[in-house]
Amino acid sequence: MIERKTKFGIIGLGLLGGSYAIALSQKGYDVTGVDIDENACAAALEKGWAKKAGSDPELLSGCDFVISALYPRTFVEWIRTNQQVLKPGCLLSDVTGVKRYIIEQLGAILRPDVEFIACHPMAGREYRGISYADPHRFKAANFIVVPTRKNTEQAVSAARQLGEILGFRRITELDPDKHDEMIGYLSQLTHVIAVSLMNANDHSDLAAYTGDSFRDLTRIAFINEDLWPQLFVMNKDYLLAEIDAFVSEMQEFRSLIDKEDTESMRQKLIQSSQRQQAFKKNDENK
Amino acid sequence: MIERKTKFGIIGLGLLGGSYAIALSQKGYDVTGVDIDENACAAALEKGWAKKAGSDPELLSGCDFVISALYPRTFVEWIRTNQQVLKPGCLLSDVTGVKRYIIEQLGAILRPDVEFIACHPMAGREYRGISYADPHRFKAANFIVVPTRKNTEQAVSAARQLGEILGFRRITELDPDKHDEMIGYLSQLTHVIAVSLMNANDHSDLAAYTGDSFRDLTRIAFINEDLWPQLFVMNKDYLLAEIDAFVSEMQEFRSLIDKEDTESMRQKLIQSSQRQQAFKKNDENK
Repeated sequence: MIERKTKFGIIGLGLLGGSYAIALSQKGYDVTGVDIDENACAAALEKGWAKKAGSDPELLSGCDFVISALYPRTFVEWIRTNQQVLKPGCLLSDVTGVKRYIIEQLGAILRPDVEFIACHPMAGREYRGISYADPHRFKAANFIVVPTRKNTEQAVSAARQLGEILGFRRITELDPDKHDEMIGYLSQLTHVIAVSLMNANDHSDLAAYTGDSFRDLTRIAFINEDLWPQLFVMNKDYLLAEIDAFVSEMQEFRSLIDKEDTESMRQKLIQSSQRQQAFKKNDENK
Repeated sequence: MIERKTKFGIIGLGLLGGSYAIALSQKGYDVTGVDIDENACAAALEKGWAKKAGSDPELLSGCDFVISALYPRTFVEWIRTNQQVLKPGCLLSDVTGVKRYIIEQLGAILRPDVEFIACHPMAGREYRGISYADPHRFKAANFIVVPTRKNTEQAVSAARQLGEILGFRRITELDPDKHDEMIGYLSQLTHVIAVSLMNANDHSDLAAYTGDSFRDLTRIAFINEDLWPQLFVMNKDYLLAEIDAFVSEMQEFRSLIDKEDTESMRQKLIQSSQRQQAFKKNDENK
């Protein structure tokens, strides 16, 4: 359980780590930040988002709840190199967008006296760095706790409580498989589509005519090129299956256009409209 | 040229026709509406959006500038059946989303003493009917005049003036080929993508986890199933070429994930980010 005196450690003071530091410090918690970027540490100290901040992992040695906001491969490397600094019995969490990879990797190397509880705050965005950190975005977002059978009930409760303290709209639990399948469809497939739409043709001469639909579909084509390829590879099985299902559906629709089969297209549009409404409804009910 | 005394006729009092009627009547122009739906006519009369409204095409016989806001096939049929009511020398325009088809069809049947000037108000939306009519949407939208070599300068000027009177943000001209190519990419391809994404799998169990990216990509999967299949078929050549280019790019990206080639993916994401920014910039400069 998180208590008033629980000391938080945050590894990586970027967009998400910075937002965590802001939210936790504003609620009165003791926050320590670790980042190899001195400017990020200086910013966190200056704004009062962390009591202590610096590049030395030792700073985390007194923390009860340590959250990594590093990219997934960097997180695994960090644990491999620095886990000896963690306090015995401390809780470890993360912000990674795919879960099976992280759980598997950490499972193989993490000290047995530190418990890892995977979390996915669905509040990433296209910008990077602490200067874009802003916990207000959490108000509209999902916080997903992704426990395994090895996790204790206390760790799951503490993770849920963290989501509440951070101000997320909705806190849910998913098992790692279901989580990664969901992310493959709702997030990764959509990003691959946006990127492919933008890259398929250089139609920049048409930019002046951009309407809402094109704008909506390509907003996420502005994307962190260092992070996402890692995430795609780590979720390769689900993502490739989603891409294949989508491309096959596109090809089917293509053949209806080619055959000028307006009636079958009509049925497809009715189905997509109904599903869109169902998604929208569920969304509004949240 | 449009003058204060110019009498407007609108065929089809739906979302767009209704919005035209509102904008023109509010600016003090004389508007006559024709629609087979008595309720739409009654609404237009009651709200003062039209001086005269009814189902009889004869109502348009005194109009100087007649605009069809019908679906494309219905518009061609209407002209075939009713064009004798039009005033000699009157100007005729439309709101259709693809242009080569309409220009070709009307070119073969339209009376020589009536001039057709094609226009595309890029302000359609997913809802239908006069109850959703609202000219405020024009403020953020493009109005494209699509002249052919047969059009007079006067007709092009009058069409541009119409776009201004209706309150569109930006009035431009494109030739029919360029217009249809642009629409194939910026609008039709995006709709086919959204529909295919929604139809590829029934993932409605995941609706509770919908984030911004999925919401953005599927908003337009709620789509008018009677109108769009017509438009897809009428622009088949360009649309199929765009679908093929997009699917080929998706397949290329898929193989990079499969090969775990993160460096090539990185380059793709850098390219898509740059193009997205170029589109965005151009958009902001408008």
